[in-house]
Order: sequence, then C-alpha cells, then structure tokens
Amino acid sequence: MIISMRRHASREEIEHVFERLREFGYKVHSIEGEERVVIGAVGVGPYVESCLESLRAASGVETAVRISAPYKFVSREFKPAKTAVRVNGTEIGGSEFIVIAGPCSVESEQQLMQTAVAVAKAGGKLLRGGAFKPRTSPYDFQGLELDGLKLLQKAKRETGLAIVTEIMSDRDVELVAEHADVMQVGARNMQNFSLLKALGTCGRPVLLKRGMSSTIKELLMSAEYLVAHGNPNVILCERGIRTFETETRNTCDIAAIPLLNGLTHLPVILDPSHATGKRRLVPPLARAAVAIGADGIIVEVHPNPEKAISDGAQSLKLQDFAAMMTELEPFIELWKHSRSRELAAAV
Amino acid sequence: MIISMRRHASREEIEHVFERLREFGYKVHSIEGEERVVIGAVGVGPYVESCLESLRAASGVETAVRISAPYKFVSREFKPAKTAVRVNGTEIGGSEFIVIAGPCSVESEQQLMQTAVAVAKAGGKLLRGGAFKPRTSPYDFQGLELDGLKLLQKAKRETGLAIVTEIMSDRDVELVAEHADVMQVGARNMQNFSLLKALGTCGRPVLLKRGMSSTIKELLMSAEYLVAHGNPNVILCERGIRTFETETRNTCDIAAIPLLNGLTHLPVILDPSHATGKRRLVPPLARAAVAIGADGIIVEVHPNPEKAISDGAQSLKLQDFAAMMTELEPFIELWKHSRSRELAAAV
Amino acid sequence: MIISMRRHASREEIEHVFERLREFGYKVHSIEGEERVVIGAVGVGPYVESCLESLRAASGVETAVRISAPYKFVSREFKPAKTAVRVNGTEIGGSEFIVIAGPCSVESEQQLMQTAVAVAKAGGKLLRGGAFKPRTSPYDFQGLELDGLKLLQKAKRETGLAIVTEIMSDRDVELVAEHADVMQVGARNMQNFSLLKALGTCGRPVLLKRGMSSTIKELLMSAEYLVAHGNPNVILCERGIRTFETETRNTCDIAAIPLLNGLTHLPVILDPSHATGKRRLVPPLARAAVAIGADGIIVEVHPNPEKAISDGAQSLKLQDFAAMMTELEPFIELWKHSRSRELAAAV
Amino acid sequence: MIISMRRHASREEIEHVFERLREFGYKVHSIEGEERVVIGAVGVGPYVESCLESLRAASGVETAVRISAPYKFVSREFKPAKTAVRVNGTEIGGSEFIVIAGPCSVESEQQLMQTAVAVAKAGGKLLRGGAFKPRTSPYDFQGLELDGLKLLQKAKRETGLAIVTEIMSDRDVELVAEHADVMQVGARNMQNFSLLKALGTCGRPVLLKRGMSSTIKELLMSAEYLVAHGNPNVILCERGIRTFETETRNTCDIAAIPLLNGLTHLPVILDPSHATGKRRLVPPLARAAVAIGADGIIVEVHPNPEKAISDGAQSLKLQDFAAMMTELEPFIELWKHSRSRELAAAV
Repeated sequence: MIISMRRHASREEIEHVFERLREFGYKVHSIEGEERVVIGAVGVGPYVESCLESLRAASGVETAVRISAPYKFVSREFKPAKTAVRVNGTEIGGSEFIVIAGPCSVESEQQLMQTAVAVAKAGGKLLRGGAFKPRTSPYDFQGLELDGLKLLQKAKRETGLAIVTEIMSDRDVELVAEHADVMQVGARNMQNFSLLKALGTCGRPVLLKRGMSSTIKELLMSAEYLVAHGNPNVILCERGIRTFETETRNTCDIAAIPLLNGLTHLPVILDPSHATGKRRLVPPLARAAVAIGADGIIVEVHPNPEKAISDGAQSLKLQDFAAMMTELEPFIELWKHSRSRELAAAV
Repeated sequence: MIISMRRHASREEIEHVFERLREFGYKVHSIEGEERVVIGAVGVGPYVESCLESLRAASGVETAVRISAPYKFVSREFKPAKTAVRVNGTEIGGSEFIVIAGPCSVESEQQLMQTAVAVAKAGGKLLRGGAFKPRTSPYDFQGLELDGLKLLQKAKRETGLAIVTEIMSDRDVELVAEHADVMQVGARNMQNFSLLKALGTCGRPVLLKRGMSSTIKELLMSAEYLVAHGNPNVILCERGIRTFETETRNTCDIAAIPLLNGLTHLPVILDPSHATGKRRLVPPLARAAVAIGADGIIVEVHPNPEKAISDGAQSLKLQDFAAMMTELEPFIELWKHSRSRELAAAV
Repeated sequence: MIISMRRHASREEIEHVFERLREFGYKVHSIEGEERVVIGAVGVGPYVESCLESLRAASGVETAVRISAPYKFVSREFKPAKTAVRVNGTEIGGSEFIVIAGPCSVESEQQLMQTAVAVAKAGGKLLRGGAFKPRTSPYDFQGLELDGLKLLQKAKRETGLAIVTEIMSDRDVELVAEHADVMQVGARNMQNFSLLKALGTCGRPVLLKRGMSSTIKELLMSAEYLVAHGNPNVILCERGIRTFETETRNTCDIAAIPLLNGLTHLPVILDPSHATGKRRLVPPLARAAVAIGADGIIVEVHPNPEKAISDGAQSLKLQDFAAMMTELEPFIELWKHSRSRELAAAV
Repeated sequence: MIISMRRHASREEIEHVFERLREFGYKVHSIEGEERVVIGAVGVGPYVESCLESLRAASGVETAVRISAPYKFVSREFKPAKTAVRVNGTEIGGSEFIVIAGPCSVESEQQLMQTAVAVAKAGGKLLRGGAFKPRTSPYDFQGLELDGLKLLQKAKRETGLAIVTEIMSDRDVELVAEHADVMQVGARNMQNFSLLKALGTCGRPVLLKRGMSSTIKELLMSAEYLVAHGNPNVILCERGIRTFETETRNTCDIAAIPLLNGLTHLPVILDPSHATGKRRLVPPLARAAVAIGADGIIVEVHPNPEKAISDGAQSLKLQDFAAMMTELEPFIELWKHSRSRELAAAV
C-alpha cells in the first residue's frame, strides 16, 4: 500500500497515518521527497479496502493505492498452470478450442431441436439457450422458464451437447443447476454478489460474463467471489463493453483476452454476438478470437433469425454458422499448434 | 417505428418488411426517397422490441428504430402531475427539499445513534445506512445484516427518522421490508430484474439508483418494471456514471435531473457522495442539486470518517454535515419559491 | 515516482531499476514487502514522462507512477491566490459572475447586432460568436471568416461588449488576435499543441475548452502549455464530456468545477449549451453553475434559433436569455456573498 | 430525414415543419400515427446538418434524424471496389498485408538506422518515426523536427523503406511532404479541420488515425474532408479508443475493422501498440488484425525500448519484432487466400 501525503502535510498528519497503518497491522516505511512524503505499508491485513478508505479520509493524505492485486485464488501468481474446466467430457481451457452456440432464447421445441442438431453437426460442443431472460423492458418476452429448461434437457439427450443457460436469481440456483451443465451469469448480474455467493456451492461450472461497464479487475474480483465461496470452475467471457460508440451494440475489448491470460489461470472465451450486435461481424470476430488465443467462443444461432424473439439481428442462420465453422478450421489448426507448445512448455 | 431500407434494397425485400409489420399488427406507410425507401409503422403491438429485432434481422433493412418511448406508466405523458412519494409523514417530490443522510454501512450501535441524532438535529428527514453491503471484494466487510436492520429500527425509534436501506436479493425482500421505510436498489442491481419484480409487491417505496453505466432510458425502464409489477412509489437517484475520468469516483451527470423532470413524473434526487467520491466536493454538489431543482439529496455522513469501514473518503463529518445544511438554507429558500410556483401552475 | 516490481522480480532486475533511476537524477528508496519490492524515487529530473516510460519498459517492473502533479504554473500549490483574467475592464475569476453569450456562428450583420444588443441589455459582459467554424462535415457552413471577425468588431463598437471568438489554426493567430479580446480554443483543438504554442505569445487571454474526452489532468496540461509558452491569462471551460449517454449531446461534468478550483488558480466557467445540447436544460444548468461556484458561463443565444445555421437546438431565444438572466439574479447574489468571503479570507 | 413530432403537437407546429422542409428543398411525407405524427423528407439539400439543427429547434419537434450517410466519396455505395493506396511501389489495401514499423520518435541516427535495417530485414514495408511529437506535457521531448525528417530520408535511402511521419500543423505541410511518403494525422488531430483541408492538396497519401473518442462516423467524415479537398489516398487506422478501462492504454475497437470494411472502400490498418500500450499484447493483437482482415498494421519497434524517449512500454525490441513477423506468416498465408478470393469476386 502506498500513501502519498499532500505537499506541506504536517508532521502530525504524517505520524497519524503511521499510527493508523500500524493499527491495521502494517509495517511502515516513509520516503521523504523534496515535495512530499510518501509512505509504503508492507504486510497484508484484513479488510484492505477499508484500510485504504480510512487512509483516504485522513487529514493530509492525497492518495492511497494498493499495490498487490486485490484477487488471490484466480491469479496466475497463485496458480501458474492454466485451469481446464471440465464439462460433460469436454474441457474449456484445455487442448481444444470450444464453440458454444445456440439461440438467445429457448422459444419452442422445434426451434431448439433444429438449432441443437445443426450446432452439433457443425462441431459445436455446448448448446446455449436462455430460459430466464433479463429484458430491459417489463413488456418483452421473459423466457419460458421451467419449460425452457426441460427443452434444453431434451436437446441434450438428443444431441449429446452440454447445456449452458442463464441464472438470474439466487432463488433459482437449485432449479437451474438440475437442468444445466454450465450456469451462465449475465453481464447485468456480474456484480450481483448474492447470486455469486449462491453459485459458489452449486456444483456446476459458471460462465461469468463481463459486466458492460466492468473493468478487468472487477471481473476478476467477481470470479474471486465464486472461487472463495467454493467453486473453482469458472469460465470468463468477454462480451463487449459500453462506450460512446454506437455503430456496434458494444465495443469488443479483444485485448482483454491476452490480458486476462496473463493475469489469471481461468479460461477466457469471447461472445462475438453480443460484442457487436451485428450478424455480419460475428465471423470476422470469431476468427480474431481464435487467432488471439481465446479458449473458445459463444455464438448466437437461430434457424430463422427474423422470427427470433430476441437478438435476431446478431444471430447467425444455421447455414452461416456451418460456413463459419468451416472457415475457422485452418485458424483452429494454428491455435492447436500454439496451444500444444504452451502445454508442453508448462510441464 | 421507422424502418430505413438499404440503398438498392429490392422490391421483394421491401414487400417482405411490409408483410412482417402487418403480421405484428402495424399499419404501414412507405416513403420512396431518391436514395432509399423508408417505412413508417403505426400502431402499438405487443413485444415491440422483438418486432424491432426481427426487422433488423430481415434482408435489406439498414436500421429499425422505435419512435415512441419504451416506457409508459412512469412517463410525464401518461401522468403529467409530479408524483410525491410519501414516507413516514414526509413527501419526496412534494413541497420540501428532502435530505437523506447517514453512514455508508451500519457498523455499531454507537456509530449509528450518534449519526442519526446529528442528522435529525441538522434537518435531515430520513436516515440511510447499509445492513447488506455489495462489495467488490469477497474479503471485505459484507454488512451486519439482520443486526444492522435492528439497529436502524432502534435509530428510527429514537430520532423519528424514516429508514432507507439497501436490498440486494429477492430472497431478502420480506425481511428488509419489515425493518425499512424505503427499499434502496443499488447501482449494481438496477437491472437485477428478479429483484425489481419482487419489489413490485413489497409494499414500500423504492429508491432506485441509476446503474453506473445505465442510460436515462434504462433507468426509466427499470422504474417501469417496479410500477408495472405493482409499486407506484419510486424515487429515482442520480449517483454518477462511469466514464474515462478518474479524478472523481464517478462522473455526476447533473443534467439528468432536469432531463428526468421532463420525461417522468417520479421524484429525482442526487447522491453527491457516490457521484464524486470526495468529501470536499459534496457541499458544492449539494448546492447545485438544490439550484437545479432536484427533489432531494442522499449524503454519506459518519462520526469519524477515518474509522469508517467503507466510503470514508466521501463521508462528511457530523459538523461538516451541519455546516452544509446551514449553507444550503438560502438555496432551499429559492427552491421553495420556485417549487410553489410550479405546484400552483400545475393546479 | 513509485515503481512497483513484479512478484518474484530478480535481484538483478531491481538493481537495474535503481541504476536507471540514478541515471535520471533521482534518489532511490526501496521497500521490501512480503510480496514484492516497491521503489520510491525522490527528486525532479527532466523528461519525467520519458523516465516513467523507460521504467515501464524495464524487465521486472509492474507499474511506474508519478506522485507529483505533472503541471506546475497552473497549480494552486504554485500560486495559491485565484487568478482574475482582465478583459476590457471586466475580470473573469474576480468578484463578479461573468456571462458570455452570443450565437454559435456569426451569420449576418443583422443577426449579430440584434443578439449583441440583447446580450448587453440583459447583463452579458462578453459576446461570443464563431467566424471560423470547426464542422464535422466538409459540406456544412465553415464560417464567415474575416467578414465574421469584422462584424464582431462592429458589434463591440456598438455595444461595448468584449469579443470571444474561436481560433482554429496557428496560421490565423495574428489575424484573430487583431479582432478578438479573448481567443477561444475549441474542444477539438484542446490538444492541438502547435496552436497552443502559438497562442503563448498572442497577447490575448485564451478561453480553453476541455476536450470532449480529455481528463481534468490533460486540460490542466494544455493550460500549462499556454502558460509555459508565455500566456498567463487562461480561462478554463467545462463543456461536457463524451460518454455512453446519448440523451444529452455531452455529459456535463459539473463536479469538474469545484475540483478544478482546488487544483488550479485559473478561473473556470461552464458552457451549459454544449454540455447538454438542449435549450430547455440550459437555464437549470446555469443555476447549478452559479450555485457550485463557477466564475461564469458561456451561453449560445440566437434571435431565431430555428434559422440558426448551427446549434439551433441548444440556443436560447433572446427573450429566454433575458428571462434566464433575471432568474439567475438571486443565485448570483448568494454567489457574491460567498465570493467576497473567499476573497477576504485570501488576503 | 425523419422528423418525429411530440405527442399532442399542434396542427400549426406540424404545418410549420412542412414549410421549413420545403424551404430547404425537400419533398415531404407525413405519417399520422396514433400517438404522434412522423414526417419523412425526401431529397438532398445543401447544409443537411443545418436543416436538422433548424428542425430540432422548431416548436413541437421531438427528434430529427438523417437517414442517409453524411459522407459520400468515402462510402462503399459511392465506390464499391476497394481502394489500394500506392506508396513507393507498395499497395496498402491491395493483395499484400502491409507492416509499418519503427520507433515512436526519431531520437538519433544510430537508433533510427538500426531500427530501419531490422524492420526491412523482417519484412516491414514502411518505416514509421515521429519528427514532430504531440506531447501532453510542454516539458517533454517535442521531437527532432527538421533533423528528424532528414534522418528519416537517410533511412529511406539506405533501406528502401517508404516513410510515414506525423504532421501536426497546417504550417508544416510542405516541409513534411518533402520528406515523407505518407503523412500521418495523429489521433489528437483527427478533427483538426484546418490541417485536413491543407492535406487535401499535399500530394501525399494520408494515414488518418481515429481520434481517441471519435466515432466511426466521425472518422469517415474526417476522411471525407481529405477526399473532398482533393486527396483520394487515405488510409484509416484504428488505434484504440478511450473508455473507462485503464488496464490497457486504450481499448482496441477491433470490430471497427470489419465494420469499416463494409462502410468504406478505403484501406484500414490497426495500431496494436497504441491500442494496448503494453508490449506483450502487441503480437496477439497483430495476429487478430490479420485474422479479422485488416489491410496492415503499424507497430512501434525500438532497439532499446528502455532507453526510448517515448512509448518504451509498448515498443517491441528488434528481435521480438522479428519473432512476431515469423509467427504471423501462417496467418498472413490465410489472409492472402481470402483476399485473392475477394479480389477475384470483385472483378
């Protein structure tokens, strides 16, 4: 922790900060500059944020910043080897590039089965589909709920695809965990801490989407909630952030992928559908995801996007999805070479 | 709804959009420009967003935008007279400028009582204080929970101040509603739709904070959730949005206040503490809030900000709060003149 | 300067940083934490940014941040007393709240004279009006240029109002300085360093608008360019920043005003017209500017906003401007009391 | 142009808008909805923005939006075939993926020659290097100016690499055009319209960097300035935008590349160095740029990043640049296949 005092801070103010730091259990070092005094605090006390807040409130203090990362279990420093999350015989974060695909919402048996069969045939490994839908408007379709979950189960039985579906409330954790292989936390719930705590013990891997205005650090802190509450199987997902640009639905922060790869051992995937909101941008973004070293992608696919209840504009048609999968093949080959070198180097 | 076709869209594509619009129950008008065809759709069908999404996914369509506001019950057009939310004998949105104050977190009986007494004495009308705390880190103080709620009740008994406290999960609605006069939805939960639905029938007014990256429209849609699910007593709160600027904790979007006043009949207050994150900016922002015509403010106050477990840097000391209240007086006088003219004009 | 080494940085890496810092002329202090080593560097060498960049590029370094402010002449620490910029017998930053008003563009003699007379009559002290116009599109009106400057001169002769007009290129500095009392640097040119350097010796005060995505620190650095190149008469202007919110043209960062007041001695004004882009929001924002302690406002006014070539939607009609000025009076009274107390305290 | 009237707009207000539109030369169509009247205006008058502004200022108008794109010459609709900008025997936007590399600033003969030789050897086609440097602080290195330009010329003679260098003022256009093959407009000058106009007739291709808070539309409008003023040889460059995320220097908006490819015929390249600010993120971003279909990249390279006067943290060492070029090879092979298919399809 580094505390920078104001210019002309008094000796009393400086001494007071020393005392406070010692109360919180830190060892204190001071650097007397020409302009101001800077204080370094060594050690790790409980409630680091509270200590920082406290110091910021103290007289004579200009800034107080923490140096160590605020997360622990999810950091590469804590666990240097990449985590592979196992789902239904497949590994996310392992030696395969994983494609998750399916409709935004589960709408009907026919829509879901047709999509699931196409996803499986084209090489997708998991099926996505929302049964509980977070909608900005109370007047729009809110999802088929339990009926949707049952349809997802049916699709799984018929195609063998594992199921990823969204969980919106800590009240529904048990119900969703019964039907899903992976529990998806949507962008709007990334900092729904009650939900994160409840998912710590749900017994299912969690696909954690980055909040639309969340920093990388906050994403990792939310992952830390899951791990600290008992669930080490977390998959991170970059899905675009909110910026001033409106040509795309969100701004795809693709650099977050290699950045996260350096900071955490958890697998990281890209959602090119939400990141752009435009169907024609999905295949180029998917190629970029492979090239940059993501662990997979999650893509919206619909048999008839025009009749989709939600996200039609960004959903691929079944044949476009198949074409994209073919186009990705040589890129995935390069990905595999690179990944196998990394895995060999890690041994 | 206005659908703008691409240049060179084919006759079939245009006809197809006509058909889709009619299926959704709209009357269709087309304008044949020199460059492109623009289609106007009149009427209000169900699932407007779905219809828009559908059209955006149709071949030949460039953009599809809705013209009418997506919210209804909360709009000024629906209810031109301003709503005054009644809490414990006080009205927010009425003829008084309301000050809500208190600590970020309830920490102890002594801390809370000392603050409550000071708030009441200086002219505050409601006491704020968190018993359930949303914290970015799983390792920081998470609130006193039920014990905190009980202390708030005690403070209410001793000072007569009504209680505002945060609700984080739909599971806790009943418990919090038993102890609080106003249910606060924090910025991170503004789009926690499960929680909003549950609060529709909680029987308590809701203080809805704007999400840190939520648009004005989204804030109004979340308020619409509350009203549509049965709760007309909603107080909106601007608390700063997330931008590139880091000198302040958030960027206070003060223009949101008169803007909201034009769009909705619901009362709007400002939280200058979270909006800036810096104690010394709170009094000037509070003056601005009065001058711009907010219905009130919500301010963090602490007997000893340096020992605060959270938000110390932005909390006012008790004497600073009292000084601010005194300084606000002549501004509040001007506010009252202006408000009484408005109320008279509305009759 | 504080350099935080990576966990497990080697002894060589740490020693290397020591050496580099000494080469740059700093004294070095190191703090050996449990997790990592943090190095403090004391002293002020030339090219601080280069030194930081260099350290960030060094092996084993995680972060390198400067502690001292990057600006000097504009800081309150350098000059504690507020600067009053004298223009034509008026002071901006002194004991009067200054209103600058006028059309976005100078369009015609009639338009300008009519506006100027109304501005003067309502109590405005300076006349704004663009002769060189920065327009996003090459196909839109680019300003009357020299003819516009001459009209501004004429308006000054007839009304006594001093002239504020925009300068867009270092090539035009002499020409504009001949006709204007205050040289306005627009938001898009805030970091046009060639222009800033040329304005250092122009002999006229500069009204420096904050760039639409510039931080407070960058605004102060651009002011520092002006002062360091010879021009101490700088007026800062908050005019809204670009964010994700689109209901208003920009997001008015009103907290920047008290924040800047703490960091710099230069006067700070608000432009409520550009900050919001909506005429009806201008008067409430103007009230807030007075209440929060700005040194003045700059407002767009037009005799017939609907026929304005630019910014019609945000321009006040002449009678609305007069009404706003009347409405501001009691707020300005409060402002004066507060300002005279500050000036007395500063003696 | 679509004008949406307010609910309850009067007949007079609607008629007035009709009149105004006709004055501006538009044909008018109105759609009478249940809630409000929407007016479509067909035709293309001069000063479209002025017309829109005018309508927005009219009584009873809620919104007025343009439907047609505000740019013309740079649009794909105007010129469907991709533009290849020819520089010194190389084509940017043609059948080769182009790598531009070099130091941020020209610092010395040795530094520049060493870098140029390494860039040429590794397969770079153009040499970048700044002689005029836009620096946030007036106290930092401002570039070698003319001496820098001469060194760039020397490097060109010795290696055959064409030269890309930044131009900061319309006053220096002739001087820089004498020494450079491509004139670079930096992010801070993207809307320096005086400079853009001057570059219209400079006789050199222009590399136009996206402003750090500029939209895609604004980038295209700035390109339109160049083309409308006589210069059809424009290369667009995505270099990251400013957002709330601070882990990277900017947020790389990679989706801008395929998006621009659909909207304009101009070539588009990526600057992964400024987009991220972190050396280790440059190679993965470069791979993504190839995979997504950019026309090239511009990368910062330095023989000794630690001793770089600017941008050391994001500059690649010479050997790292060579390694990256090798690593890119198979991706560039895939790029070429795809590009040759596109070129064949366009015939």
